[in-house]
Amino acid sequence: MNSGRLEALGDGIFSIAMTILVLELVLPEVKGHSWKDFTAALHETWYGLLCYAISFIVLGIMWFGHRLMFEYIGRTDRYFIFLGVLFYMVVCLVPFSTRLLAKNTFEWYAIMIYGLNLSLCNLTLYCQWLYGISKPHILHREIPAEIKREAHIQFLLSPVVYAIAIAVSFYIPWISIAIFIVTPILYLIPSKLDKYLP
Amino acid sequence: MNSGRLEALGDGIFSIAMTILVLELVLPEVKGHSWKDFTAALHETWYGLLCYAISFIVLGIMWFGHRLMFEYIGRTDRYFIFLGVLFYMVVCLVPFSTRLLAKNTFEWYAIMIYGLNLSLCNLTLYCQWLYGISKPHILHREIPAEIKREAHIQFLLSPVVYAIAIAVSFYIPWISIAIFIVTPILYLIPSKLDKYLP
Amino acid sequence: MNSGRLEALGDGIFSIAMTILVLELVLPEVKGHSWKDFTAALHETWYGLLCYAISFIVLGIMWFGHRLMFEYIGRTDRYFIFLGVLFYMVVCLVPFSTRLLAKNTFEWYAIMIYGLNLSLCNLTLYCQWLYGISKPHILHREIPAEIKREAHIQFLLSPVVYAIAIAVSFYIPWISIAIFIVTPILYLIPSKLDKYLP
Amino acid sequence: MNSGRLEALGDGIFSIAMTILVLELVLPEVKGHSWKDFTAALHETWYGLLCYAISFIVLGIMWFGHRLMFEYIGRTDRYFIFLGVLFYMVVCLVPFSTRLLAKNTFEWYAIMIYGLNLSLCNLTLYCQWLYGISKPHILHREIPAEIKREAHIQFLLSPVVYAIAIAVSFYIPWISIAIFIVTPILYLIPSKLDKYLP
Repeated sequence: MNSGRLEALGDGIFSIAMTILVLELVLPEVKGHSWKDFTAALHETWYGLLCYAISFIVLGIMWFGHRLMFEYIGRTDRYFIFLGVLFYMVVCLVPFSTRLLAKNTFEWYAIMIYGLNLSLCNLTLYCQWLYGISKPHILHREIPAEIKREAHIQFLLSPVVYAIAIAVSFYIPWISIAIFIVTPILYLIPSKLDKYLP
Repeated sequence: MNSGRLEALGDGIFSIAMTILVLELVLPEVKGHSWKDFTAALHETWYGLLCYAISFIVLGIMWFGHRLMFEYIGRTDRYFIFLGVLFYMVVCLVPFSTRLLAKNTFEWYAIMIYGLNLSLCNLTLYCQWLYGISKPHILHREIPAEIKREAHIQFLLSPVVYAIAIAVSFYIPWISIAIFIVTPILYLIPSKLDKYLP
Repeated sequence: MNSGRLEALGDGIFSIAMTILVLELVLPEVKGHSWKDFTAALHETWYGLLCYAISFIVLGIMWFGHRLMFEYIGRTDRYFIFLGVLFYMVVCLVPFSTRLLAKNTFEWYAIMIYGLNLSLCNLTLYCQWLYGISKPHILHREIPAEIKREAHIQFLLSPVVYAIAIAVSFYIPWISIAIFIVTPILYLIPSKLDKYLP
Repeated sequence: MNSGRLEALGDGIFSIAMTILVLELVLPEVKGHSWKDFTAALHETWYGLLCYAISFIVLGIMWFGHRLMFEYIGRTDRYFIFLGVLFYMVVCLVPFSTRLLAKNTFEWYAIMIYGLNLSLCNLTLYCQWLYGISKPHILHREIPAEIKREAHIQFLLSPVVYAIAIAVSFYIPWISIAIFIVTPILYLIPSKLDKYLP
């Protein structure tokens, strides 16, 4: 089967997962009419907005990576689709772990589940990639050796970084949150692969 | 009318039904900061995650089957579209019956409604298929006899299995849940039809 | 601008509006383990499911009509898009009025708002159609006179029927509900226009 | 990368953001059966519907503007996609600020956050536009000088108007709401750019 159908399902799933993040945001309950009442109420919403922004940008980056993969993979088979469904399954859990993190921002278990969820997204996509590049019949273009080499780093970078964030969370949780904020920026830096961008 | 439009509606409906499954997940309420408090709270979330995973994969398989049908059916008519809307109607109920099962995992009525819902998905799609193959003017390719024969089994396999799950639920409910977990895996096994895969 | 973009937005909006109907369904709260407890709890869910089914099928029919319109209208302009956004705005309200009807099934005000909402969907689509057929530069095919004549009936049939349902609701509300159930079936009957179906 | 993929993600995000606005609407709780009970209950829903309508139309206009931009920009690069994700991130916040405004319609802080959110949508899209027109390699058509000139006005008009609405809200909040209602209508007036419409 042509991979276009799976890509359409994936585009839909990413746009919905990104949009419903907003449903998890809790309204600030302002108790009065002054600026002080407002900032006091916003204090609680603040973490919600921060987690919303991190998850939205991380999902945006994953959508981009997932799109790039299909520049080389043009067909699908039974197992490739199954791996794709697994990937989408963990992606769709992100609004859940974001909600958990927004409510318990500095608790180790919220940081652990959030980091685990984001890592699993990368790892399932990595499985799909590894399966894809091992089956020449589903590729529609030769993959340059440099891309194969760099892709490992790109896929494994964030699981490693998130593992550090989880480990740190038992001692100084705000460092973990800082790591969650900084990691997406790492993916913004132009990489060696940019010359292959279609 | 070209079937492409109905397929686009269907792709949208499947990706949304799969994504909003996550909205039904209840946050674990951790009462303390220790590992024990965390696992105690997770206990309740556990069934939610299990039901989420089952439904997500079952919907993924149904999306795949529904896609395959359109490899042979290239046009639509009034009744075919109506049957399609009926199919989407039961598909969209899956987040509801999943929520019910997540909250009452080992109750016979939750298992019954969940099994009934999944069976109805297969049966309405089967109606659409039977209608489609009986109207040569909406096919855009000849359907090989072997596909026609095998398709009956593929469509009716899960309703039969789910009927067993429902019957068993009155006595040993965890076997029903085990059946729900195992059934999707049956659809992963390569079948005789794979050589016809486009 | 080519109408394809507006159609894509519309397909998305219809598939989401249809899918989120399920979010409004309230779980049955079964108080015991017997069949009697189950049917007692289902009693409340029953109206929710009925309203869900009516709205889902009505939206499906509207999606179909809206699709057919674009068989003749191939381009858009500023005002046509604005009318389209108005149409989508009332379509997206259907999950809201469905929720109201599910909770207050036999109350005149719920029937009134539901009937009003469905009528407005038809009427805004009718405005879009009237605007479209009056501007030759946005058509991409000549519209046969018979279609123009029949379309008036198809667009105005349900607002008239729903007006009757609203009027009746002050006296015998269950007749109004029966009208809501029967109306979609009227649209299933093959019409004189079927020979023009693409 | 071809911009088509980003456009598909954007179409999905816009249709979902527009549709889930309805989930924020609170049901009227009618306490009796008379017309008076009904209008009393509707009083609370009224602001919800008004905010729903404003946000829906504003998002429709933004979707239109965003679509027009891609008439000239046909390719994407790393930073353009990042700016796009930022734009979608603020767009997806609109259901949140709409909910806040619906609940606290005449409070200065709700008006401020709502006005800020809508302004940020325009400003992030403006950044994307400025970046796009400065990189000839992502354009697929020459942009006429008149469009470049007028675009500044179109992008900055609403942030300026919303800034006034926010300032006014500290004194006479209903004028701010009136500004929110009138602004979308300004965008409906045919502009000098219409002759360039594709």
